[in-house]
Order: sequence, then structure tokens, then C-alpha cells
Amino acid sequence: MEELLAPFRQAVREQGDLVRELREKGAPEQEVSKAAAELKSRKKTLEAKELALQPKEDTVDRVKMEDTLKRRFFYDQAFAIYGGVSGLYDFGPVGCALKNNILQVWRQHFIQEEQILEIDCTMLTPEPVLKTSGHVDKFADYMVKDAKTGECYRADHLLKAHLKKLMCEEKCSVGQVNELEDVITQMDNYAQQELADLFVKYNVKSPATGNDLTPPVSFNLMFQTSIGPGGNMPGYLRPETAQGMFLNFKRLLEFNQGKLPFAAAQIGNSFRNEISPRSGLIRVREFTMAEIEHFVDPNEKVHPKFSNVADLEIMLFSSKAQTSGQSAQMMRLGDAVEQGVINNSVLGYFIGRIYLYLIKVGLSKDKVRFRQHMENEMAHYACDCWDAESKTSYGWIEIVGCADRSCYDLSCHSRATKVPLVAEKMLKEPKTVNVIQFEPNKSAIGMAYKKDAKLALEYLAVCDDCYISDQEKLLSEKGEFSFETDGKTFKLTKDMVSVKRFQKTLHVEEIIPNVIEPSFGIGRIMYSIYEHSFHIREGDEQRTYFSFPTIVAPYKCSILPLSQNQNFVPFIHQLDY
Amino acid sequence: MEELLAPFRQAVREQGDLVRELREKGAPEQEVSKAAAELKSRKKTLEAKELALQPKEDTVDRVKMEDTLKRRFFYDQAFAIYGGVSGLYDFGPVGCALKNNILQVWRQHFIQEEQILEIDCTMLTPEPVLKTSGHVDKFADYMVKDAKTGECYRADHLLKAHLKKLMCEEKCSVGQVNELEDVITQMDNYAQQELADLFVKYNVKSPATGNDLTPPVSFNLMFQTSIGPGGNMPGYLRPETAQGMFLNFKRLLEFNQGKLPFAAAQIGNSFRNEISPRSGLIRVREFTMAEIEHFVDPNEKVHPKFSNVADLEIMLFSSKAQTSGQSAQMMRLGDAVEQGVINNSVLGYFIGRIYLYLIKVGLSKDKVRFRQHMENEMAHYACDCWDAESKTSYGWIEIVGCADRSCYDLSCHSRATKVPLVAEKMLKEPKTVNVIQFEPNKSAIGMAYKKDAKLALEYLAVCDDCYISDQEKLLSEKGEFSFETDGKTFKLTKDMVSVKRFQKTLHVEEIIPNVIEPSFGIGRIMYSIYEHSFHIREGDEQRTYFSFPTIVAPYKCSILPLSQNQNFVPFIHQLDY
Repeated sequence: MEELLAPFRQAVREQGDLVRELREKGAPEQEVSKAAAELKSRKKTLEAKELALQPKEDTVDRVKMEDTLKRRFFYDQAFAIYGGVSGLYDFGPVGCALKNNILQVWRQHFIQEEQILEIDCTMLTPEPVLKTSGHVDKFADYMVKDAKTGECYRADHLLKAHLKKLMCEEKCSVGQVNELEDVITQMDNYAQQELADLFVKYNVKSPATGNDLTPPVSFNLMFQTSIGPGGNMPGYLRPETAQGMFLNFKRLLEFNQGKLPFAAAQIGNSFRNEISPRSGLIRVREFTMAEIEHFVDPNEKVHPKFSNVADLEIMLFSSKAQTSGQSAQMMRLGDAVEQGVINNSVLGYFIGRIYLYLIKVGLSKDKVRFRQHMENEMAHYACDCWDAESKTSYGWIEIVGCADRSCYDLSCHSRATKVPLVAEKMLKEPKTVNVIQFEPNKSAIGMAYKKDAKLALEYLAVCDDCYISDQEKLLSEKGEFSFETDGKTFKLTKDMVSVKRFQKTLHVEEIIPNVIEPSFGIGRIMYSIYEHSFHIREGDEQRTYFSFPTIVAPYKCSILPLSQNQNFVPFIHQLDY
Repeated sequence: MEELLAPFRQAVREQGDLVRELREKGAPEQEVSKAAAELKSRKKTLEAKELALQPKEDTVDRVKMEDTLKRRFFYDQAFAIYGGVSGLYDFGPVGCALKNNILQVWRQHFIQEEQILEIDCTMLTPEPVLKTSGHVDKFADYMVKDAKTGECYRADHLLKAHLKKLMCEEKCSVGQVNELEDVITQMDNYAQQELADLFVKYNVKSPATGNDLTPPVSFNLMFQTSIGPGGNMPGYLRPETAQGMFLNFKRLLEFNQGKLPFAAAQIGNSFRNEISPRSGLIRVREFTMAEIEHFVDPNEKVHPKFSNVADLEIMLFSSKAQTSGQSAQMMRLGDAVEQGVINNSVLGYFIGRIYLYLIKVGLSKDKVRFRQHMENEMAHYACDCWDAESKTSYGWIEIVGCADRSCYDLSCHSRATKVPLVAEKMLKEPKTVNVIQFEPNKSAIGMAYKKDAKLALEYLAVCDDCYISDQEKLLSEKGEFSFETDGKTFKLTKDMVSVKRFQKTLHVEEIIPNVIEPSFGIGRIMYSIYEHSFHIREGDEQRTYFSFPTIVAPYKCSILPLSQNQNFVPFIHQLDY
């Protein structure tokens, strides 16, 4: 098997080296991201080969399994008697009991064990909050429409399917195949206009009707609504539960008597208006999440209980292994943190706890791995990120994300609301520190922005160090920087603001906590449990069953009458009630 | 006290008699409803007097209690750092733990005890479902807007407040006071145009600015959104969880091996876009409900476990007591069912179980009553309805509804989807029954409706007996009846359809189950627990606390260091972890 995989591993390694080289020599961003996309594509090919070579008995008969799940009403399509709505599912009695048990174990395993502060926030969210978090502007996919029927398709999915079809045509030359492959590889990197050009170039039509398609437009994946009767407060259904915890940070900190570290958690539904959801329970429009935000002093990113999980052997797929064509490796968690494979022991601790949870609720040990995000996958503010992945008939799918998001979220909301979201730390001894802050020229700003000047000054007063450094760089390079606050845009030039650095003796230190965020997709975990617990009775293809761990099983025990004799009924009821 | 109340009781009794008399002699609908509204108003006055006369120590200091709740972060306004949104609240760690416990006890008390089938449906709901349920057309309040600022007000609330102000003015004569009181009494009965005329007549202006107001318009209280990217599938956030259980009826029946009775339950969030929410946790825009739908053969409305609750003494406020000016009375549940005060023992059983649940989670026995809906309050299809009410500083508020909704919901969805939502009952002996069904004249309908005729025929084939009888009456009185299906309207005349009655020998009987629906507002129950458990330490106004029953208390026990001595920390951790 390794022999067959060797050339694919080699291809990944070469491309990984190229990406690293380009980065090191500071090649243009576009060149780097093109190479990174190619790397991603080669990684995918390698993984597909690995999966194809696995022993046959490891593959689940998904059709048979889904048939069993629907027949036993674990779940089924919502609104079926009204024709159904794709991406929406209802859970029946057994599915619902399983889900409740999964959540109950989650509460015990995380909230009770770690004394996490669970909160329960609204799903309705006013627009400004999601503007700050970036969802209003960036949480979108490109979509094309059938010009006549109005049917919508995700642009990248449709283009890819079309190109794959072209590649299979006899008249397609080797050169053309390579060109098409190149386009597929770059799919994630195309901007709107580039995508539009490709649709024209390859003459893509509506797959259902052959009609023309409208050019790709960006479609925001949040469900929009209007809060209150005035029509002047746009809102959305939250796309994640995390924001509620950031917004309540000050109350939670106070609840914890002002002390770091502490963690908040939330279990609840989130919503994504997928353009054309497929893949059953894997990609749905309404789903349950469980998220933790662990707030920690960035200078003390050490978890006191890490030793409890340090000896766990977990399958880790590090960024380095991915870019060099290796497989995921079993590794002792303690070693992974010590060797810097995992950035810090807080992240390491959560990875260990997540692993234990997944095994407890019924995932197979050999079908769970933790995959590190590669540099180009991670948000610019994240300092490390690992996804728990589960092996299913869809391949390896992400089921839990575990990211160190640094101080990004609190800083953003702080700047947008001008409410300082910081913790105070009493210093044992007074400390001299370097301070960096904006030094606004009030009269110049006042001249330029009149009555809005106050907004700009308030904004400048609550910025964090990293942000100030970034803007200082812009000021010196371009002579200006811009920002938006309260719906107003400001462009400040060198004569309006400078950056001051000085030393100060502190007795109390203000800290913007870093946040480690384990984020669980409950539906996907449940789906993985189904696949990992599904069996077909030997010698009887029709007899299918699930073997759930007791802790999550919908029924712990069952009383079944072996005889229809009515005389037994009273005794059954005695046991029953 | 009774002496003071006597004239008010008398006033209610007189009006109750009048309403009954009008009904009996078949007075015009408008006259009856006017008298009923006056009755309602007199009842309110009586209740207000009763509450005002209660001992002072029974009243909760709401300001102090809410202050404690917010300070300890049981709950607080959502999105506060963004200015807040009225009607939306977040639950903090203790509030969230209390809520989880309330729900956990609910699951044990109802779902496990009664072996109810819990399901979990989506909140996103496509429009046709809520069109059928009546929410699209009728779930609305009238609203007026400040013509300049756009601020919105609930028309009836605003008009009432304005009239009350007028009544207090010195220049207001006795005659005018009576007139204004009359308008207030009739408030719930006015149609849109009548309301508009009253706003003009009494020259009502915007209370905040004195600006003109726009005429009242109907405002639907559901949050609207669009499902999928096409913009052609309008949807709403569900206003109740019940619909999901009706839509899954067939799957649930099959899950229960085709047998009646059985019950389904759902716990989840629902949404109501209130025009101007006030009253804290009592009237919010997003809230958790727990609902049960108990499906039962209408001919077997007897609960086998009723004897378990028959001896409970519960405060019942029957429709008869209400219309004759009496107070609620303690009554043995068994007697109430036997005497027909409560319609049947299934309803009676649930009333008993609801009572036990409310007491278990911390409501005071003397602050819980069950109030029967009066005839004019009930939906036309309901055959009996009781609200569990809790006494709070807002007066008696509804916290659980318990209605016998007959076969209404299943019949509606059946007609709309043409999917028969029925159960089959094997008869021990073949039975001769009277059958009533539509006898369509296919060619006449085909002539009139061409290709849509099929829709009409399908519709006629799935109608239930009550509906057919109703239409038969219309046919004979007016010569025609109309209906809408699949967005098309049909008007059928005598020559297109007749009603056939005949006898048939049945071996299997088709039954449209009746449904008993206990519906719990979890937020209001939680609020009632707060009020009923709140205490102020004697002699120390500043020391406030809650005494929750252990079963719902957020903390069962707490380990608190009495000394700051660092040597103790390891021992505390040993106990803690």
C-alpha cells in the first residue's frame, strides 16, 4: 500500500517545499496562494488514494444505514407532507434521545468537570454585532441562477462538476485536461469576476434545463429577518453561538470575581442558509452547536490540569506532516506540546478532553484524528488551530474545531462598542511596562470631522496594542489609515494622529484575554456515531443494527412481551410505570 | 374583605347572566360579543380588587428582585454593549443552570413517566405550513407609527392609555367617562377601521413626540425570513413548537406501531415579534416552550392513570365561577371530572400532572390556579381549555395552557396536503357505521375548473366528517361553498357536489385522533419560581436571596474557602475536581 502511495506523497512534499520556499523569499501573495491551493489539491488526491486503499470492510453502506435511520425515525426530512425543505431535518424519538444524551454527557464532561460558566443567549442577533464579527461582509458563497427557472447553484460546485465532465469527454486533449485540472485546483482562490469569466469561457449552462446562467453573485449565508415592527432593525439568525459569549464577557468576568482564566460555554442552534445543501446530516441549514470560550491571560497559557491528559496517545496530523506528504501519526499529547507541535498546553488540554469525549460518546479510536490547520487555512489572527476529524463514508470530516483565536474577538467588539473588554490583574510587585497608544491631534480631527470627531476619539482610546502597531505601520508607510465606527468612515492622516510610546509603572495590569475556542458540531458528531456504530448482521443483509455505548443509547433497557396474552399486560404495566 | 368585594361580584354575575340569556335567545353575534367583552372587563375589575385587598406581605418587591437577578447574572438584557434589544434576554450561569434543571425535571416528570415520544423539529418553517395553521393570516396585532420618527406602538395599548388619561382630566364629564370606559371595554372587539376611527375621534398623538400617527395596520407577529437562496421560499421562525408534532403524526403513529393513544413532546425555542415588548421576562421575542400533543381516540377519552391524580385538591376557576362572580375554588380533581367541570379524564389527568410539576419546581401551592376558558375565549374547535395561572406582581399570569383541541389541527393539515392523518382501529366485531362523504360531479367540476379539477377532487376526498357536515349546511342554505387548496380557490355549487350518506360494514375504522395539548411557557414558569422563592432578610433590606427547591437549584452545594490561606488551596481543589 505504501508503495502505491509513494508517488502521491512525493508530489505533496515537493509542493509543500515550494510553498515554504516562496514564503521564505517573500514571493508575491498571489503566487504563494496559487502554490498553496495546488498543495491543497495534491493533499486531497493523496487522501482520496489512502481512503480508496483501505480495507473494504471499513466502508459503511451509507444507503443501508440511512434507510435504517429513517425507518426507525432517528431522523427524517422536515415538512415532508408539504414536499420537504432541503437541509432541514426533524429528529424522531430515538434520534432525539440520542442527541439529548450526547448533550448531557457534554455537560458532564466539560461544564461540570471544568466548572465552565454555561450561558444561554438569543439566536436573533442585530446586524451591528455580526458586522463587527465579519459575518455580514464575509460569510458568503458565490451563486449562479438558472436565468429562466431561477434555480440556484453554488458557483464553485457547479463549475467544478462541469469541468470534470469536460475532462471525461473523448475530444479533450492532455493539454486541455491539465488546464481544467489547474482551474479546479485554483477554485477557492477565484474572485467574483474571475469566476464569471470562467463560466463564460467554459460555456457553463444550467445542469437541469440547459438554460443560461446569471453571472455569479455573492450570497450571504445568514438568514436575515427584521427585529421589531419598525423595519429599521435588521437582524440575523446567529451563524454560531460564540458571539453571545464575547458580548457577555464583562458580566462573566465579574461573575468569576474578576479572575482569569475562566471559560464560558453555550449549547444551542445556529443557522446557515446553504445555497444547495446536500450530503444529508453533514450540511444542514439549522444545527445544534456546543461551544466553549476559554479566556486566558496570554502570558499564562499553561493549563494546570494538562498532566491529566499528557499521556494520551492521539492521532495527530500536524501541518508539517501535511505539507510533507506524511500520514497522521500517533503521538503522546505531552510530547506534542513539549515539541511545539501543539502551540501551548491549554490548547493541548482541550485536544485531550475533546478526544476523551468523542470516544466516550461512541466514536471509534481509529477513526478520529486531529488535523492542524496549515498556515494559509488559518484566520490571520489565530495562532494555532486543530480540527477533530472523523472518518466517514464522506471521507474525513471536521466535527470539532479547536482554535487559539488570540485576542481577536474581544478586541473587535471593544473597538466597535467602545466598551473595554479587559481583565485587571493585580501585580505582586509594581512593574514598569512599555505603553503604546494613539496620540490624537484633537483640533485637526475636530476640523476634519466636526461633530463626528468625538466618535473617532472614543474609538482611538480603546484600541489594543496589536491594532495600534498595525496602524502605526500604515501611518509611516502610506501616511494614513482608515476605520469605520458607528457606521461612519474615518481616514486619519499623520497630522491628525501619531503613536506615542512610553513607559509606565503599573500596579494593576489590564489584559485583553486570549481565547481558546473548542467548537462542536453536534449533528456531525451524531452522524459519526451512527457510522461508527452501524452493523449488518453476518449472513443476513436485511438485519441492520446500531451498537451505541450505554451512556448515549436511546434505550438503556427494554421490556418486550414475548406473548400477546392479555393476562400479562398488568404485569408489564407494573414494570413499565 | 368579602363585604368590599360583594358589589363587584354582583356586577359580574349580572353581566354573566345577561350573556347567557343573549346566547340562549340567539341574539345577534355582535350584541353577544359586546356583552361578553363587558363581562370580561367586569371580571378584570373584580380580580384587580381581589389582588389589591390581599395582605401586603404577599407582594413581591419586583424592583429589588430584578436587581438581584441581574446582579447575580441570572439573566440580563441581550446585546447590552451594543445598546440592547428590547424583548431579548441572555441567561447567565445561574439562570441557565436553573433553566436546564427545570427542563430536566420536565423530561423526567412527563416524557419518562408517560413514555412520551420526544422529537426535535426545526424552527425554520416554510410559509404553507403556517398558512394552514392560521398563523400567516391571524397571528397579528394592530400597530400605529409615529408619522415622523417611525416609532411603533401597539394600537390597543396606546389608545387605552390615552383614554385613561382623558378620563382623569377635570373637564371630563360623567357621561364622557362612561363613554370612554365603554370604548376600553370593547377594545378587543374593534376591527381595523373602527380602531382607525377611534384614533381620529380622540385625536391620539404619539406619546413620545406629540407627532401625528399613521392609521392602524395589522402587523404579523412572526419573524419572516427566506429559506434558500432563490428568494422564492418565504419562511418564518415558528411561533410555537406544536406544528412539528402534527406534521410528524404519521411517523410517530408508525413508531407507536399504529396504536392510539400516544403522545409526542417537543422542547425548543419559539419566536414572536412583539410590537413593543415590556414586562421583562413575561413578554419576550424569543422563548423556550415545552409542548405535549396527546393523540387519543375521540371515543375513548379516558385516561387509565387518572386515579393517580384524582385525589389532588387543586384551585379551579371554572368558567361558571367566572361568569357568576365567584372566586376560584379548591376542588378534588376526581370530583371536577365526575361533575363535568373538566370535560374528560384525559384533560383532568394532565391538569393534575401539570399541577404536580409546577409545585415540584418551586411554585407556591397557594399561588397556582387553573382557570377555564370561557366560551367566547376558546377557539371554535376547542372543546375545553384550562390555563395554569401563577400569581405574580403582574397579577395572575398564564404559564401553561392545557387545551382539548379536538381533531382540528390534523384535519387542517390533512386537507392542505391531501395526506390522510388518521389512525386505523381494528374492530373486534365488524361494525355498521354511517358514512358521510362528498359525491363530486366530476364532469361539472372538470368543466368549471379544467386542469385544476384534480386538485379539487383530491381535496374533497380527504375531508373529515365535521367539515363535510358544515359544508353540507352551506350547500343547502346558500347553494355553494368555497375552499382554497394549493393556492387556488374553488367555489362549488349544488350541481358540482352533493353529500352522500350511507351505511358501511367496517372491519377497520379510520379515526382522526383528538389532541390534548399541554403547552408550557418555560420562561414564565421560571419567572414565577423567582417571585415565589424571593426573600428579603428580616431587618436587613439589602440582603436578598432565593430559596429554590433542591431539584432545580443552580447549585446543590458549594465549597467556599473561609480563609485566604494559600495552603488550603490544594485541599479545595481535591474536593472541587
